Amino acid sequence: MTAEVPVEWWPDVKPDAARRLMAAALESFAVRGYHATTTRDIAAAAGMSPAALYVHFPSKAAVLFALSRSGHEKGLAMVRSAASGAGSPAERMRVLVAEFVAWHAREHRGARVIQYELNALPEQEFAVVAELRRQTERVVRDLITEGIATGEFTVPDVKTAARAVLSLSIDVARWYSDGAGQSPDQLGGQYAALVLPMLGSR
Amino acid sequence: MTAEVPVEWWPDVKPDAARRLMAAALESFAVRGYHATTTRDIAAAAGMSPAALYVHFPSKAAVLFALSRSGHEKGLAMVRSAASGAGSPAERMRVLVAEFVAWHAREHRGARVIQYELNALPEQEFAVVAELRRQTERVVRDLITEGIATGEFTVPDVKTAARAVLSLSIDVARWYSDGAGQSPDQLGGQYAALVLPMLGSR
Repeated sequence: MTAEVPVEWWPDVKPDAARRLMAAALESFAVRGYHATTTRDIAAAAGMSPAALYVHFPSKAAVLFALSRSGHEKGLAMVRSAASGAGSPAERMRVLVAEFVAWHAREHRGARVIQYELNALPEQEFAVVAELRRQTERVVRDLITEGIATGEFTVPDVKTAARAVLSLSIDVARWYSDGAGQSPDQLGGQYAALVLPMLGSR
Repeated sequence: MTAEVPVEWWPDVKPDAARRLMAAALESFAVRGYHATTTRDIAAAAGMSPAALYVHFPSKAAVLFALSRSGHEKGLAMVRSAASGAGSPAERMRVLVAEFVAWHAREHRGARVIQYELNALPEQEFAVVAELRRQTERVVRDLITEGIATGEFTVPDVKTAARAVLSLSIDVARWYSDGAGQSPDQLGGQYAALVLPMLGSR
């Protein structure tokens, strides 16, 4: 855990020590759960002193928030990019689901922390993440609405359908393991092929 | 938390003190997470001494196992009953999803503990719960296979489709709150209406 953390994990986070602390926290939260992890555990896993942690993060909750915000920003950027790409709404939805599912499979350890420890965030920080989630849902809702307009999709309720699309993708983090039968990309393709008919696409 | 726990929660568990401990543990795990909860916390929440807990459960893990096994047995019984009911495979699938989803919405606090603290179970206990999960998946797979035989369903891969059906339902426990727009039964109906076309049913 004291190795350098790839810059591409959290490109906006500097210096490397802060990235190392985030990687150590993600690992500790994944193994022990957020509540049972101490700042001392995180610092030790990053090969630092507890005091060194406080230079970069004022609290354990601040590290969770940094991880959670970063993860949700990545997810939002991913669905936005897919939704605004080329092709019909159904084709863009296929890309969106395939990528979002593959990502949750590939990064299932980190995704679990981000998804299931959300309630541990302090109120203000929770609100920031909740807003990122609302924006993500809005992208999916807008794409479904677009598909209804072109006649590609038919769903009784756009909001519930959007929630189901995201829900199906996010739950992959819960059950996926590296020993699963499918690679992340295979699973992404399979789930995309299930979501399209769910939205009424033939 | 010191009130009597309704017998219907865990009808096979006796005496009432054991049920009260299970209810207290579920609440404590839900609030704090499994790892950060002590047997002392559970006993206190049940209005008992730590020693009294050990009369009924040898460890904190034993309480989690009792909760997890009971929850998974209920889920299995529910899908079995729906799958073996009257009507075509599509009609039975509609009932199965509607009930399984409504249950995960209604009992979302308990379902969260059972679903997301699974990895905290010791190996042997985990194996028991994993077997219940495999049986649950098998019921759904068999029903999809039946629907393919009658021509009601068309899916590229039965195993993945069954996983998606269960995954969509289980994830309800993560995001559902009592302030959600829909009642558990409404959500169950909406999700059933999404799952049927996902399985190729018109």
